[in-house]
Amino acid sequence: MVLLERPIKFEEVDAAGIVFFGRFVTYAHEAMEHFFSTLEGGYAGLIMGQRLGFPAVHLEMSFSAPARYGDTLRIETRIARVGNRSAVLWYRMFNGDTLSAEIKHTVVISDLRTLTSCDMPADVRARLVAHLEPA
Amino acid sequence: MVLLERPIKFEEVDAAGIVFFGRFVTYAHEAMEHFFSTLEGGYAGLIMGQRLGFPAVHLEMSFSAPARYGDTLRIETRIARVGNRSAVLWYRMFNGDTLSAEIKHTVVISDLRTLTSCDMPADVRARLVAHLEPA
Amino acid sequence: MVLLERPIKFEEVDAAGIVFFGRFVTYAHEAMEHFFSTLEGGYAGLIMGQRLGFPAVHLEMSFSAPARYGDTLRIETRIARVGNRSAVLWYRMFNGDTLSAEIKHTVVISDLRTLTSCDMPADVRARLVAHLEPA
Amino acid sequence: MVLLERPIKFEEVDAAGIVFFGRFVTYAHEAMEHFFSTLEGGYAGLIMGQRLGFPAVHLEMSFSAPARYGDTLRIETRIARVGNRSAVLWYRMFNGDTLSAEIKHTVVISDLRTLTSCDMPADVRARLVAHLEPA
Repeated sequence: MVLLERPIKFEEVDAAGIVFFGRFVTYAHEAMEHFFSTLEGGYAGLIMGQRLGFPAVHLEMSFSAPARYGDTLRIETRIARVGNRSAVLWYRMFNGDTLSAEIKHTVVISDLRTLTSCDMPADVRARLVAHLEPA
Repeated sequence: MVLLERPIKFEEVDAAGIVFFGRFVTYAHEAMEHFFSTLEGGYAGLIMGQRLGFPAVHLEMSFSAPARYGDTLRIETRIARVGNRSAVLWYRMFNGDTLSAEIKHTVVISDLRTLTSCDMPADVRARLVAHLEPA
Repeated sequence: MVLLERPIKFEEVDAAGIVFFGRFVTYAHEAMEHFFSTLEGGYAGLIMGQRLGFPAVHLEMSFSAPARYGDTLRIETRIARVGNRSAVLWYRMFNGDTLSAEIKHTVVISDLRTLTSCDMPADVRARLVAHLEPA
Repeated sequence: MVLLERPIKFEEVDAAGIVFFGRFVTYAHEAMEHFFSTLEGGYAGLIMGQRLGFPAVHLEMSFSAPARYGDTLRIETRIARVGNRSAVLWYRMFNGDTLSAEIKHTVVISDLRTLTSCDMPADVRARLVAHLEPA
């Protein structure tokens, strides 16, 4: 499990006064970038250097408690599944002791020049396998 | 079925050159606002006037084709389920003839002052029922 | 003068309950896209087809009244100056009868492959000159 | 001078492949929040607790070099002016050794319940004065 602490930002709430639910996708992506930050060049190195990326093909999100400006989310990232060309990232986002959102994020590793799937580099696979905890 | 045409905006793509997947949540919300635009005062009237809203409790998204700046999404909104205090909105987003994203969006009608569920106003229920098409 | 009506969106307010001031830059950009929508292929055609764009080099913004969810901005776009490779777009954004924001936006027409300035296509220049109203 | 290091995020670039210019307003706001993070409760405490905020009344931005995904901005925050109810924050954002953007941000301290100006709390004033460096 990899942990990220993420304060809610001023402009991330909506007209209902709570974090806009679409923002949680951004938090998931930030947690994924953080998960891969141990790779040489980080996630940005994959994208900008190797032109490899992880487009989402499926996303399942459950929201159980709102978050507000001034709160800090504690995001736990685990890997629920690893395939040859795909993986499922699994995020649990806590606001204090309360689970605020849970996300399963299925990605397919892809060549960004052609947007077609490809095999994972060995370091990406190793990082995923090291945190594999099937739900 | 209610239709919304939505051009992709300049700043909605990401470093991979395609629409950031989190943006599709925003498109879903815009389609929901459009769906309720026939109510007196529209969706904004519910939120700002009656302080009623539809916080999401669950979201399931499938992505099947990317979208880019210059594309226009054609968003079909249907209602997959109506309960006493909840509903499932179902969006199919087409890029030309290709299905780009499909979203099931479960909301619970809530009093925004307390963030607790409440019964639906009659006009909200009527609008939902009028477009009910169980998947 | 070219006019754009732009409803405030649900997620554009901030934790102070008013439109986040950075959003007005997005509104300015939308008004610029709308201004150039009469060109063949629109602004997206310039960007994605010809790989020409208008990076900002200077922006001056004054805010005189807040906007909230449910409000609609009426954005007037004028051209304050046209040079060989640059122009100043001038936006006045009204919330009802009240001026909410005024923006002067200096752009330099640029080849996006190299991010260096270049001369304007004739249709771009003609569109700018047609709406030139020095302040 | 107060320093903030801020990596560019994946979804902050636009269809031209560089950071969308409106994002720099968000960076300025983040730098302001960071500037006030030494106050008890931070900037969020002001907003959510005391319902005091700093709505912008004027913004002047110059852009001199683009930023891309993978870059990290080094943001220097200084105070260019302190009045009784207003202040000018001055940000210089460097991408490596290159100045990418410079922003002067005039705020008026305001009661968020009424959106009218008010005097600054003593700790806010002290923090501003401590970093006053007229340009």
